[in-house]
Amino acid sequence: MAPVSDRIELLIDTFASVRSATTDICQPLEVEDYVIQTAVYMSPPRWHLGHTTWFFEMLLKSHLPGYEVYDERFLYLFNSYYDGFGKRIDRHRRGTFARPTVARVYDYRRAVDSAMSRLLQQIDSLPAADEIARTVRLGLEHEIQHQELLVYDIKHLLCDEYKPVRLHPLPAAAPIGGEVEIEGGIFRLGYDGGDFSYDNEQPAHRVFVLPFAIDRRPVTNEEFRAFVDDGGYSDYRWWLSEGWAKVRAEQWEAPLYWEQHDGLWFERGYRGLRELAANEPVTHVSFYEAAAYAKWAGKRLPTEAEWEMAACWDPIRGEKLKFPWGDEAPAEHHANLFENALWNPAPAGSFAAGESPSGCRQMIGDAWEWTMSDYAPYPGFKPQFDEYNDKWFINQKVLRGGSYATPRSHIRTTYRNFFHPDERWMVSGFRCARTIQAD
Amino acid sequence: MAPVSDRIELLIDTFASVRSATTDICQPLEVEDYVIQTAVYMSPPRWHLGHTTWFFEMLLKSHLPGYEVYDERFLYLFNSYYDGFGKRIDRHRRGTFARPTVARVYDYRRAVDSAMSRLLQQIDSLPAADEIARTVRLGLEHEIQHQELLVYDIKHLLCDEYKPVRLHPLPAAAPIGGEVEIEGGIFRLGYDGGDFSYDNEQPAHRVFVLPFAIDRRPVTNEEFRAFVDDGGYSDYRWWLSEGWAKVRAEQWEAPLYWEQHDGLWFERGYRGLRELAANEPVTHVSFYEAAAYAKWAGKRLPTEAEWEMAACWDPIRGEKLKFPWGDEAPAEHHANLFENALWNPAPAGSFAAGESPSGCRQMIGDAWEWTMSDYAPYPGFKPQFDEYNDKWFINQKVLRGGSYATPRSHIRTTYRNFFHPDERWMVSGFRCARTIQAD
Amino acid sequence: MAPVSDRIELLIDTFASVRSATTDICQPLEVEDYVIQTAVYMSPPRWHLGHTTWFFEMLLKSHLPGYEVYDERFLYLFNSYYDGFGKRIDRHRRGTFARPTVARVYDYRRAVDSAMSRLLQQIDSLPAADEIARTVRLGLEHEIQHQELLVYDIKHLLCDEYKPVRLHPLPAAAPIGGEVEIEGGIFRLGYDGGDFSYDNEQPAHRVFVLPFAIDRRPVTNEEFRAFVDDGGYSDYRWWLSEGWAKVRAEQWEAPLYWEQHDGLWFERGYRGLRELAANEPVTHVSFYEAAAYAKWAGKRLPTEAEWEMAACWDPIRGEKLKFPWGDEAPAEHHANLFENALWNPAPAGSFAAGESPSGCRQMIGDAWEWTMSDYAPYPGFKPQFDEYNDKWFINQKVLRGGSYATPRSHIRTTYRNFFHPDERWMVSGFRCARTIQAD
Amino acid sequence: MAPVSDRIELLIDTFASVRSATTDICQPLEVEDYVIQTAVYMSPPRWHLGHTTWFFEMLLKSHLPGYEVYDERFLYLFNSYYDGFGKRIDRHRRGTFARPTVARVYDYRRAVDSAMSRLLQQIDSLPAADEIARTVRLGLEHEIQHQELLVYDIKHLLCDEYKPVRLHPLPAAAPIGGEVEIEGGIFRLGYDGGDFSYDNEQPAHRVFVLPFAIDRRPVTNEEFRAFVDDGGYSDYRWWLSEGWAKVRAEQWEAPLYWEQHDGLWFERGYRGLRELAANEPVTHVSFYEAAAYAKWAGKRLPTEAEWEMAACWDPIRGEKLKFPWGDEAPAEHHANLFENALWNPAPAGSFAAGESPSGCRQMIGDAWEWTMSDYAPYPGFKPQFDEYNDKWFINQKVLRGGSYATPRSHIRTTYRNFFHPDERWMVSGFRCARTIQAD
Repeated sequence: MAPVSDRIELLIDTFASVRSATTDICQPLEVEDYVIQTAVYMSPPRWHLGHTTWFFEMLLKSHLPGYEVYDERFLYLFNSYYDGFGKRIDRHRRGTFARPTVARVYDYRRAVDSAMSRLLQQIDSLPAADEIARTVRLGLEHEIQHQELLVYDIKHLLCDEYKPVRLHPLPAAAPIGGEVEIEGGIFRLGYDGGDFSYDNEQPAHRVFVLPFAIDRRPVTNEEFRAFVDDGGYSDYRWWLSEGWAKVRAEQWEAPLYWEQHDGLWFERGYRGLRELAANEPVTHVSFYEAAAYAKWAGKRLPTEAEWEMAACWDPIRGEKLKFPWGDEAPAEHHANLFENALWNPAPAGSFAAGESPSGCRQMIGDAWEWTMSDYAPYPGFKPQFDEYNDKWFINQKVLRGGSYATPRSHIRTTYRNFFHPDERWMVSGFRCARTIQAD
Repeated sequence: MAPVSDRIELLIDTFASVRSATTDICQPLEVEDYVIQTAVYMSPPRWHLGHTTWFFEMLLKSHLPGYEVYDERFLYLFNSYYDGFGKRIDRHRRGTFARPTVARVYDYRRAVDSAMSRLLQQIDSLPAADEIARTVRLGLEHEIQHQELLVYDIKHLLCDEYKPVRLHPLPAAAPIGGEVEIEGGIFRLGYDGGDFSYDNEQPAHRVFVLPFAIDRRPVTNEEFRAFVDDGGYSDYRWWLSEGWAKVRAEQWEAPLYWEQHDGLWFERGYRGLRELAANEPVTHVSFYEAAAYAKWAGKRLPTEAEWEMAACWDPIRGEKLKFPWGDEAPAEHHANLFENALWNPAPAGSFAAGESPSGCRQMIGDAWEWTMSDYAPYPGFKPQFDEYNDKWFINQKVLRGGSYATPRSHIRTTYRNFFHPDERWMVSGFRCARTIQAD
Repeated sequence: MAPVSDRIELLIDTFASVRSATTDICQPLEVEDYVIQTAVYMSPPRWHLGHTTWFFEMLLKSHLPGYEVYDERFLYLFNSYYDGFGKRIDRHRRGTFARPTVARVYDYRRAVDSAMSRLLQQIDSLPAADEIARTVRLGLEHEIQHQELLVYDIKHLLCDEYKPVRLHPLPAAAPIGGEVEIEGGIFRLGYDGGDFSYDNEQPAHRVFVLPFAIDRRPVTNEEFRAFVDDGGYSDYRWWLSEGWAKVRAEQWEAPLYWEQHDGLWFERGYRGLRELAANEPVTHVSFYEAAAYAKWAGKRLPTEAEWEMAACWDPIRGEKLKFPWGDEAPAEHHANLFENALWNPAPAGSFAAGESPSGCRQMIGDAWEWTMSDYAPYPGFKPQFDEYNDKWFINQKVLRGGSYATPRSHIRTTYRNFFHPDERWMVSGFRCARTIQAD
Repeated sequence: MAPVSDRIELLIDTFASVRSATTDICQPLEVEDYVIQTAVYMSPPRWHLGHTTWFFEMLLKSHLPGYEVYDERFLYLFNSYYDGFGKRIDRHRRGTFARPTVARVYDYRRAVDSAMSRLLQQIDSLPAADEIARTVRLGLEHEIQHQELLVYDIKHLLCDEYKPVRLHPLPAAAPIGGEVEIEGGIFRLGYDGGDFSYDNEQPAHRVFVLPFAIDRRPVTNEEFRAFVDDGGYSDYRWWLSEGWAKVRAEQWEAPLYWEQHDGLWFERGYRGLRELAANEPVTHVSFYEAAAYAKWAGKRLPTEAEWEMAACWDPIRGEKLKFPWGDEAPAEHHANLFENALWNPAPAGSFAAGESPSGCRQMIGDAWEWTMSDYAPYPGFKPQFDEYNDKWFINQKVLRGGSYATPRSHIRTTYRNFFHPDERWMVSGFRCARTIQAD
């Protein structure tokens, strides 16, 4: 491990860049945009700014000698769900208080950042240095996660009224299709690198995977529209029972953000209201919709082991690769990760150089992909962070990959994202799979 | 009736002053404050600004040749409940949209004001001049009503974080108490003057009132605290059944804005958090609480006929007075009406010069007073405004008088305010009455 | 007052006949029918049998020396809403417990009846004789009320599957129509006879009534169908705001029990499914529907003072009559009261001999009639029964008259029935009125 | 495969015995008990009788020439959730209709049984013989499932007021404890025998299991009480987030049917209210409670592969056994399966002869055991029955084994039961496991 002083410098640098990335996303917002909550699953940008700061303030309270809480009320307003830190505002009421003003929350950020700077400067002299460093790292990963949520939330709040600072042209792509076959066998699932990962990715452990086929690329808008046009949303046969109840209760007729005008389908996004781009991955579908499509298509969703194998298993070398494309990502692929984002999934088939060893594309950087795997602990799981990942091990499905809203530093082939099966406000898509031989 | 040209000038002047009074109330607000909805019964200030403007825009659409709608989306966002004007946002979702910005709503106001100015200038030449003038007048009365709602809403939103532009010292008052006895008999209830009144105040008509006694002044905080201290909120015997259900469901223990700290009762208001002022009228009580107190005290609430008689019947002259104190209000009394407001009810017994002929004080300008009368049409009622007053003739109780948040031009002895019996976000108090002789 | 011994004999007789009338209604029921709750406002017959018995058991607990509670669990299961008697099952859960069996509830009735018999035999020797007699009388009136509720509940439960023991042919009626005009003036509203009445009918007191017109007979099915056919249920203009919300939420398209088959309207009732009888009073309409019809027809509902005046004021003699038709009811009219019931409203215009002095018919014995009067205490009201009538003085409207399901002994011109404005499971109809001259 | 005629005879016999087993369970019921619904998850016995009959009537409609539907209304009342068979009563309203009477439902059963008998007699002559036989078999399995649900529902409805026809004394048991270690490796999960199994148990397929330890017997009441006494139900740390929300919303303090009296814990069951039997398996716990206990105890729940391996893997022979104890179950073990039931779980450690090859006891016949496995399709899954198992593949957890309420013919080591994680009205318990070595 590097000497502490190097680590500190890196920590301080990372801290500054992560923190400013959060506010960068907010730069185009009006004051009003910061405080509105459009739906119970959405949080106002002001709240994200406050909550990510609160996370570090909790650290300061424990470890910076003489630190005084910035404002007692913020402890109530900006705690998300940590029972260990006391009472907090109900989630659905995050948009019901007028104060603090946005300006004051920015002051709060600056004050906490400044105190964090003091803490990090003296970290060597503190007995809990390792724990602090570990918690800072967690806080930064946590903030990166919230950056992605911010993007989803802003989409729900403003959609085409939000103007990203940079908006790059979408790449062109030669259409590809079909599926690849993977032989299966014993596979080592999960993270065992030496860098940061969440506890829920560990321990890496053996699983047995039966021979399977998986789509080379995500299901596209055009493919999904065929399901819609075939009456998919009004035929109970394709749906899980609870999905069917949801479809009727919410009167779903298509993915979120799709709109029909004069018989044509459009999609609203950061680029405005555009006629449905046939060749782009379908996004903003729930697990229910993904599973219904797969059943209609005579397939199923992949398990997370299948997905991970398709993403990084190199049968020639007989090993898992760190990234689908090896240790060095092709520059072009980077284009679709958050820091330099397209703010849109790239057309299906883009990034030929980023093909996985098995021949799959776009497993990262376009849309999170639903798997059929329950979000549950791996065998031998040990919680490393209180109330962070393990209290959610129920009623959720694992998504793998990463979307165009996922910060680049947050991408790993082993990363396990999770949402309830009825959620679709995040950038969620899917690809299909099937078992070749069950026995 | 005055010549049309005079009326127009007056209309134009009144229009300007009413419209600017609305924005005056908003002057101390931060941008964030404009858009937040704290509870389902509350509307964000942005919405009030938009809605009162929408009201005039509907008039422009019908009557100003060539008028083009400012923004089609505003028709949906800023309609309140008028079925005749199409679909509208659900009431509980008035704080869930980020745009238009506050600045743009102010632009909207200016644009509509400017178009209204054009309309009013040419009103003489229009065939519908009378209808237009009548609707403008209604629109102004409507806006005045919203000014009062704005004050209530801002209190719920910000309470002591709102700083009124002017805040006058409360008057001192010699304590008065007791009740006055009124002989009753045939009384002419309702409005029959020649100025504006709502249709629900008409027609004036005869009612028979039995001899009754009524409190000289509103019930005070001190008196109400005795009810609280006596366990009033935990004894079902004082409560109407639906009131008792509300008390338990909402865990009410005292009037809204009362807080207990270290065994002492405080009240939060525009003047900050102050120890309960014993001598001020209790406010922010629901009908249920008012009725429970009255039952506990061995009395009842007055009917609206009793209240109106106590407020303006002069048994010596044998006639109703326009105001409790005659045609000219004493200057001191004016102090507590909105334009020059105390932003607080005055101590009980204030405004000796404003005593009604029967000897009652503070029937206007401190707190609305609950009556036991159902909000129902008077015999011979004819609706004059579509969907304005008559669709609400159910499940509500009449309040009489007016609070310190009631604009002065809105005060009449015959004005019928109405709220559901469980509401208490408005400045509502009460005084007790009893029947002296039932037969 | 009669000597106590006579009163006792009468009490004992009345007790026996009232109690057996309740079980008579239940005679045609299957065991299953006793225990089912079809809707939150409905109570299962088993529950009525238990609750009316519980009422007398509470009396026994207080006054019969040595009385032991029959079954402690029944105190919880069969209390309706009396906070003074402790915890009780939630109203909507009255059909969720399997035991006691129906047979055991009948045992309970017999045991309590037997103990009541012992109490009544020795009443003279008890110091609280008067209070006991008064409470027994109240208990019997209470049970009579529940007999009527039983009929409503059985209709909701079984409708045409319930076969009344006796079912008489409907009378023929010459069609009458039009309205009568009543001069108004000072009228003495409420009960001041010497027999039993509820506290809410007292004290009789003067009111002033303006000249008005009122329909000679209830609104008929044919008339109401015209409103339905005119699109009345899909036009917001006729409806109170909360009524309109109800119509849409419940998808009301016609009165309860109306059914449309092949374009024709039918009504389901104790006589089976019959094509809508044009000439019978419309029943099972809520206040909202009655008020909407009246607005559509250019009229309004009467106040309860108007209704009572139309029912019993004799302008020639200058006095109120005990019954519309004088002291002796014509035999034919009796036919439609409960003990010998038609189990249906009689055709409009029936019972010519039962015309009120003002010329109105069928004010009693066919359908309860909605008035526009709030259910509120009369001036000088004094509660005589704990938690019986006065805790309901909110959010309800007064109905006057009585339906074919009203026991004969329960009929009075001054009787004030009350329901929430959205209720329509009882036999509720209405007639229209209008103010002739408001001033 | 046996000749068709043999199969038919067997089918006819099985049909008769399964159908009468259902009514046997109902024999002790009163009429009232048949029709009451105590909670939304519970169905009244009348409904079970009707629904299981409806299942066969649907078969008759399709395959018995000339069959006429018994009563059209039953198609609506007795369909459970099959969208393919049209509209149906809402689940929570199964106890809100009075008719048909119980007697008529028994008539319905007899009529359908009689028609089924006609169908089965002529099955050879029908072209769809195989499909019919397959559906009859499914219908019988379906009815067996409902027998178990009936037992759960009757417990919720009547608990100790239900008197089983036979009630055997509980066996004595030498206390055993501790865990067994299982080496893991490739294991063949699922059913591949030649007899009936559900589609969700197939196809049998290879999985890889890491070395693990599992409790020799289910967690006992005494062990679970230690968790309760340690404040387990008021410490968020042990709970999944959604479980913790449930605990607070429902105010859970212990397993269902536990009651505390004077500081002692009792359990109510078919044997009455008994002081908590320390040595019996805890039952009526939700997944949330099982998982919370396991976390508190430093363990976890087993996966279904681990559970199945512990139940039937014989490492000596290197094969799965049909039953834990081999092909022939010891007679004593049978005692606790439904047909000759104890109506209670047997004490922990009972049935030594029924030990699995790995040394675990009571994996069958006492309580269903929660696993941490999501209820999801096995790889290569093919639905064999419409809307039967596959529409439920979401938000549920697999339970393995079988309870004392599970009919003997329904027991298989591969049987996958499933419930939502908050359900606890069934006889559900658990045992703990842990991973010995993750890698």
